[in-house]
Amino acid sequence: MIQVAVLGYGVVGSGVVEVIEKNQEMINKKAGCEIQVKYVLDLRDFPDNPIQSKIVHDINTILDDSQVQVIVETMGGVEPAYTFTKKALALGKSVCTSNKELVANHAPELLQLAKENNCNYLFEASVGGGIPIIRPINYSLTPEKIEGITGILNGTTNYILTKMQKEGAAFQDVLKEAQLKGYAEKNPEADVEGYDACRKIAILSSLMYGKNVKYEDIYTEGITKLTAEDFTYAKKLGTSIKLLAISKDMGDKYFAMVAPFMIGQEHPLFSVNDVFNGIFVKGNMLGDTMYYGRGAGKLPTASAVVSDVIDCARHLGKNILCFWDSERVKLTSINQISRKFFVRIKGTVEEVLPKVEEVFGKVSVVTCEELPEEFGFITEEITELSFNEKAEAISGIRSRIRIEE
Amino acid sequence: MIQVAVLGYGVVGSGVVEVIEKNQEMINKKAGCEIQVKYVLDLRDFPDNPIQSKIVHDINTILDDSQVQVIVETMGGVEPAYTFTKKALALGKSVCTSNKELVANHAPELLQLAKENNCNYLFEASVGGGIPIIRPINYSLTPEKIEGITGILNGTTNYILTKMQKEGAAFQDVLKEAQLKGYAEKNPEADVEGYDACRKIAILSSLMYGKNVKYEDIYTEGITKLTAEDFTYAKKLGTSIKLLAISKDMGDKYFAMVAPFMIGQEHPLFSVNDVFNGIFVKGNMLGDTMYYGRGAGKLPTASAVVSDVIDCARHLGKNILCFWDSERVKLTSINQISRKFFVRIKGTVEEVLPKVEEVFGKVSVVTCEELPEEFGFITEEITELSFNEKAEAISGIRSRIRIEE
Repeated sequence: MIQVAVLGYGVVGSGVVEVIEKNQEMINKKAGCEIQVKYVLDLRDFPDNPIQSKIVHDINTILDDSQVQVIVETMGGVEPAYTFTKKALALGKSVCTSNKELVANHAPELLQLAKENNCNYLFEASVGGGIPIIRPINYSLTPEKIEGITGILNGTTNYILTKMQKEGAAFQDVLKEAQLKGYAEKNPEADVEGYDACRKIAILSSLMYGKNVKYEDIYTEGITKLTAEDFTYAKKLGTSIKLLAISKDMGDKYFAMVAPFMIGQEHPLFSVNDVFNGIFVKGNMLGDTMYYGRGAGKLPTASAVVSDVIDCARHLGKNILCFWDSERVKLTSINQISRKFFVRIKGTVEEVLPKVEEVFGKVSVVTCEELPEEFGFITEEITELSFNEKAEAISGIRSRIRIEE
Repeated sequence: MIQVAVLGYGVVGSGVVEVIEKNQEMINKKAGCEIQVKYVLDLRDFPDNPIQSKIVHDINTILDDSQVQVIVETMGGVEPAYTFTKKALALGKSVCTSNKELVANHAPELLQLAKENNCNYLFEASVGGGIPIIRPINYSLTPEKIEGITGILNGTTNYILTKMQKEGAAFQDVLKEAQLKGYAEKNPEADVEGYDACRKIAILSSLMYGKNVKYEDIYTEGITKLTAEDFTYAKKLGTSIKLLAISKDMGDKYFAMVAPFMIGQEHPLFSVNDVFNGIFVKGNMLGDTMYYGRGAGKLPTASAVVSDVIDCARHLGKNILCFWDSERVKLTSINQISRKFFVRIKGTVEEVLPKVEEVFGKVSVVTCEELPEEFGFITEEITELSFNEKAEAISGIRSRIRIEE
């Protein structure tokens, strides 16, 4: 039997308890032994809930109990999760987490600690919620040199963008609706500013390179500046606008960023809508693979955590190889990266296009009947630096959206 | 160091040697030790090829060499692969295979043999080519009760159907083109009659249930009867026609089948085109997940085989849990399954619809200008048995395609 302690009885933590209860038979079979939740650590008490019999308020009750072999950390945030995780691993107790903040900040150290103590630090739930993505990268794509990862990694923003696309609604209105439905937090900054997606692509990039990609080094732009008008053009062009997290191994340089992108119908992420996530991984031998599913939510995320618990049970006393060294990856500046840009500009085609083409060279023009006082154009492929310089030289630019092909 | 022997230097076998050579550094790192191909078994000699130095013609050279710990079986077909695999496993040598025929026929016995001898029988490449699907089911979806799997599992037929859809071409013409391009075999029966997809869904179903689903029990219908006219209606309806392999755990009964289905744009498999495969897995906790990529091809398939070799290296002397008992799953007859059907019928709506609705009740009618001498209709949800009985009662039915929603 494996005794488990759950740190934090919030959404995911209570989901873990629920998944272990509901699918007990299946889980015990797959683990090769019985999995039992012995403790739940929380500051609160839950007097009317059967979980109360397992609630403890002192982490040392868990750390001091040699029967506890696996710890589920679903507290979120760096502290005290970081301290608790280090103590647990140092005692040879494996830790399974959904805490992307902690993973993005301290994984190399925690993985090393797990290795030294013949236990495991697993974090399947930290990216893509219920979508198996960490384990496919670590266990399945092992013969591959991964050349790139492109993902829709945040369900909240994808829900908002899908609504804006389908209903022509404004950002603020959709955000409010998402908050009412519980799809967005009261303080939505981490989602809508792209910070959440940034931490997730930092984790995936680190696994892709085997070295440490610091999220602070990743250029990140959120979706707050997108307007209904941007989507009017997207519709006209047959494209959609998605918050993409991109990481690319360009041979001589590494690159990662998070920003809204226009993508065409042929792009495999085009039809990833609503709260779903999709992650596209390109390997040098097998080409493109994609993983799709619910990127958040209580039970999907909890299921991913429990899959880690089962993996720990299968590898008791044995560290599973995971390559994420502390050496920091130097990312190339976004300025050096080339792509096409979609631009909206004030004025009529007749008046303004000559100036635009004087600066940008040949562009493709797109006009929308609904927006007679402006038009859109798509540049040829140019570097970000060059785009910014040229854009400075023209007045009346209302927005620009990068294009991913 | 792990010494590997490859049985069969055909497309996949030579791909395995190529992947191990090209990504050697990555593979050794991920395996935790050096992986080296020591022998290649083939009836032929390859005098102008460096591989010749490793070619052997007698399986006993490999079986008798205690240095060989992992065997790659890429021979295809049941014999002699079956005999060779049994001998290898009995000696404690792990076997990694791309041979879906052998897996679909004998996996329970071979898995048991591997277990008894503390080695492994792995078959990631047997379904979905380069797409990680076996390992996600066995290692990642472990806490889930899998309720259903729906897949496009055959690249050849998906290529043909995509061409028919996009170009309005006839089946025979597209098949010829696919044969010229090497996407279809000279004898295309296994692909176009659905036999290949049938074996693959038998494998996935067995892993889903943990018991043995015999492919002979799975109702299988190929794509040879589909015509350009069927796709004219599909276009009009905004749907596409795909060869789907479906397996469902309906609580009180199990069900599996392979057949062409009409699917709408909202279906996640709608945009899986050309030689790509897509596999949709529904779990009771995490809901829908999808896996997408190249379902065939030398290097993608070889990469999947090498991922198994790495897994064997990581688990030397230790059997990895895999649940596929020999107990045969009793599948429910297709006759009991309900769904909507699309039907093409000779005659005009005015003349024939009354008779159609007398038999089928209310139907939705669809007409195509290009096909004035016939029309199409979609039934309400009815069982297969009931559909067949009703269809018998009407003359002039030209084709019927099941609808998957």
